Amino acid sequence: MRNLINILDLSTEEIQGLMDTANDIIAHPAAYAEKCRGKKLATLFFEPSTRTRLSFEAAMYELGGNVLGFSEAASSSSAKGESVADTAKILSCYADIIAMRHPKEGAPYVASLNASIPVINAGDGGHNHPTQTLADLLTIYREKGRLDHLTIGLCGDLKYGRTVHSLLEAMSRYEGIKVVLISPEELKLPSYVKKGVLVEKGVEYIQTTSLEEAIPELDILYMTRIQRERFPSEEEYFRLKDSYILTPEKMQAAKADMCVLHPLPRVNEISVAVDSDPRACYFKQALYGKYMRMALILKLLEEADKPEKPEPDEGLYLRNVIKCRNSRCITTTEQELDHVFKLVNREHDLYRCIYCETKEKYHGI
Amino acid sequence: MRNLINILDLSTEEIQGLMDTANDIIAHPAAYAEKCRGKKLATLFFEPSTRTRLSFEAAMYELGGNVLGFSEAASSSSAKGESVADTAKILSCYADIIAMRHPKEGAPYVASLNASIPVINAGDGGHNHPTQTLADLLTIYREKGRLDHLTIGLCGDLKYGRTVHSLLEAMSRYEGIKVVLISPEELKLPSYVKKGVLVEKGVEYIQTTSLEEAIPELDILYMTRIQRERFPSEEEYFRLKDSYILTPEKMQAAKADMCVLHPLPRVNEISVAVDSDPRACYFKQALYGKYMRMALILKLLEEADKPEKPEPDEGLYLRNVIKCRNSRCITTTEQELDHVFKLVNREHDLYRCIYCETKEKYHGI
Amino acid sequence: MRNLINILDLSTEEIQGLMDTANDIIAHPAAYAEKCRGKKLATLFFEPSTRTRLSFEAAMYELGGNVLGFSEAASSSSAKGESVADTAKILSCYADIIAMRHPKEGAPYVASLNASIPVINAGDGGHNHPTQTLADLLTIYREKGRLDHLTIGLCGDLKYGRTVHSLLEAMSRYEGIKVVLISPEELKLPSYVKKGVLVEKGVEYIQTTSLEEAIPELDILYMTRIQRERFPSEEEYFRLKDSYILTPEKMQAAKADMCVLHPLPRVNEISVAVDSDPRACYFKQALYGKYMRMALILKLLEEADKPEKPEPDEGLYLRNVIKCRNSRCITTTEQELDHVFKLVNREHDLYRCIYCETKEKYHGI
Repeated sequence: MRNLINILDLSTEEIQGLMDTANDIIAHPAAYAEKCRGKKLATLFFEPSTRTRLSFEAAMYELGGNVLGFSEAASSSSAKGESVADTAKILSCYADIIAMRHPKEGAPYVASLNASIPVINAGDGGHNHPTQTLADLLTIYREKGRLDHLTIGLCGDLKYGRTVHSLLEAMSRYEGIKVVLISPEELKLPSYVKKGVLVEKGVEYIQTTSLEEAIPELDILYMTRIQRERFPSEEEYFRLKDSYILTPEKMQAAKADMCVLHPLPRVNEISVAVDSDPRACYFKQALYGKYMRMALILKLLEEADKPEKPEPDEGLYLRNVIKCRNSRCITTTEQELDHVFKLVNREHDLYRCIYCETKEKYHGI
Repeated sequence: MRNLINILDLSTEEIQGLMDTANDIIAHPAAYAEKCRGKKLATLFFEPSTRTRLSFEAAMYELGGNVLGFSEAASSSSAKGESVADTAKILSCYADIIAMRHPKEGAPYVASLNASIPVINAGDGGHNHPTQTLADLLTIYREKGRLDHLTIGLCGDLKYGRTVHSLLEAMSRYEGIKVVLISPEELKLPSYVKKGVLVEKGVEYIQTTSLEEAIPELDILYMTRIQRERFPSEEEYFRLKDSYILTPEKMQAAKADMCVLHPLPRVNEISVAVDSDPRACYFKQALYGKYMRMALILKLLEEADKPEKPEPDEGLYLRNVIKCRNSRCITTTEQELDHVFKLVNREHDLYRCIYCETKEKYHGI
Repeated sequence: MRNLINILDLSTEEIQGLMDTANDIIAHPAAYAEKCRGKKLATLFFEPSTRTRLSFEAAMYELGGNVLGFSEAASSSSAKGESVADTAKILSCYADIIAMRHPKEGAPYVASLNASIPVINAGDGGHNHPTQTLADLLTIYREKGRLDHLTIGLCGDLKYGRTVHSLLEAMSRYEGIKVVLISPEELKLPSYVKKGVLVEKGVEYIQTTSLEEAIPELDILYMTRIQRERFPSEEEYFRLKDSYILTPEKMQAAKADMCVLHPLPRVNEISVAVDSDPRACYFKQALYGKYMRMALILKLLEEADKPEKPEPDEGLYLRNVIKCRNSRCITTTEQELDHVFKLVNREHDLYRCIYCETKEKYHGI
């Protein structure tokens, strides 16, 4: 069974394949209108996310399929204490493919281990949101004609913004990528992303606190929301917030063919006056997200019928030896779930939780 | 793009056209079963209204289309602070037509200004609810064979009942309409409706507090609910409430072909014992509402593909000069929304908020 | 109009017919994929029950139909005080068949008295849940090849578990059924079920507190959840709970072809380690539930078009003479609903509420 839990589950060839399909859908929508006739998508949203949910639903309907599910945990059996594993097993009786949103990190992975149908991660807490990244990639590809040799600015909350981390992971696999990290000091990109992604893959990057200074060089500007509560103080918030709001004035310094992206919903980090600028691509991005989800649903349903490739277990695992300390990890709430860590660095005795990817040191072996 | 925000957006010819289509659907439902194949209706209900929502959904399904959306704000992106304008823009990527319910007056109008697909107002606070009025009109037309030369009694809460105001606006365009306004003193029809609709259009009307006295003259009796909290006191409520409850006894004094309408849901303002009276038309009215929504969806989708007629801007507008003081106006919550007023009476310096239609005097120009 | 309110509404021949249809659907799903094209199921869930709701939705989609409805009361018109009777009448305008879940006992029966389309009880408080029983029966039939001559163990909360009571009612109609009742003292099968079902139908039964002792004899083990709050004290709970948890160890003493059933969701009453045992049938049971719902929808829609058989009123009824004292009865909340009791035992002056089936003595006649 193929699932999509993390954007890195897909090779660059597979991403190119999804983009090719999406482009073909855009060009010939009628050819896809009956592709999923009789198929059902389950949208299991344990926390609300209207835009993502409706994008998946629109995608499935445009393929001729049906949709069932729930839009918040209160309406679900989990309110009665059902485990994610059981929900995944039962939904495998009712649907052909699952899109799951969950506040706990690793929940869709747990679902994928238990479902007999493909599972798509539609966002698991602050962890992964691979279909957002697919939307970002198609937008860049359609607007710039390529995914390599681009200077990409990422602006706003780079510390907690999972869409930023996923996009960096995805883009770091292409050649000639330069990254400009634009954020207040307090919300800088975490060093584990800087080291683990940018340094590891040899991606050139600079850090700055000034959007105005950075903007002239950029091919892509990826804006994100800064939540007020992320700032150390109210004063700091009011002092800084305007510097990270994109306005028509700041746009004047940008290249004529720069693209502005935003994962949406926005609150006020992009002025409404920018919407009419032809470089504003964030509503197109929402549209492209639908087409990438269509391509993804098609690919996973197709591969669901193929015999499973046995995954060679090359790693060294700790099962119920140490516990994950991440309070947002699915292991903190799921009943009877083994705590499993995989060795990722033998020299440093470093293990990684297979659900939420939090790293732990362990010397006991 | 054609939208339906206010019942007066439709000419009497267009209303007749919708009724003709609805009657044809009733006569030949199979001919319409595939009309919207591949189309999607977005039901964006920022507050719950099951009956209206399910009526729209049933309408779209009977046309062969699909439905996506949400049934309350808690499940929507607005909980994250997204503006109505952005929601409308994004939903334009996911659906072909929008039905929007919102607690703020003017919200569907804001949506219509930003969507690239048609928007239907499915109720905006106490302001407009045009598809209810379409249901009312078809019920009268089918039961009485005409919309003119009728004596219409409106009973209950005439002060806050928006369905009453909209029905009066719609009926005042037909000839020979007599109106009997039946309500407690405290809940009389507001004078701006009396003057602005009945007097302005020369509609004959009388006011009374007695349903029993009024009933023998009526061709149509339009009942509405009186909410307990509308009364000045508990005593007043208990003294008066029974006079405005329709019972089999009161029905005895009515014409043999009078029709009883009610926008539903009812609580106790019509006794259940009246349901079996052949003059009780309120459940038929719910059914006719579905057919009018089908006719409306068909009409708006058809006109969505036609080139837009440029709207001649003949008015004089104030943009961000005065602010709307109506606390239920969408301008009180929507980010970056201009406060716009249109001159409606030059002699009295009277302007009207383009969103909620609240009037203001302004002498500054 | 045929409805399904109580499992006993169906004769054993009709249950066999539904199982035959379900088996045919399992064998030839494509033959059913368009059977309900253009039909609409209304899922009216006044309290959340994801699994049951999604099972109905999946069933309708696999028949080619559509689904509309709500998943909790907060999103429904009942929040505005609408009666169940009115909701049923209005939904009859929007859908072709209703599946209703309601916290009040007898609510789906009230709906069936008012709807002009078939009503399926999808669970009314602790009262009835006939489609769960249909799922149970098909599971037993497919796994054991018969519904008669079986030894059935029921384990857990036999006092409040409505699925247990319904299953006993259904199974007591087959020959050669032996029942083993396994529960703590405090949660024993109520004597009205023992007398009214087992003794009345001459079903052989024994009672025990030990799952371990009972398990070797069983053909079927029906597990249910014991809610902590059902126990007289915390100590009692901790002392007893493990004895009613099914583990691989306990399974070792069971027959090689025993079947384990559970209505789901489970919390911890069946260890996850049992899931991989081929005798674990509870996820299959969820799947079979979907097929029985498909068969039921087909049957009721088919019979909806047939002329109604007049039901001979043979009973003696009390109308508004005594009131139902069951606080969970729909008569406690529904407006203008007659209190109706039917004589069930003349010798003892025993009457039964027609909605929730609570019995009352009345000597006044």
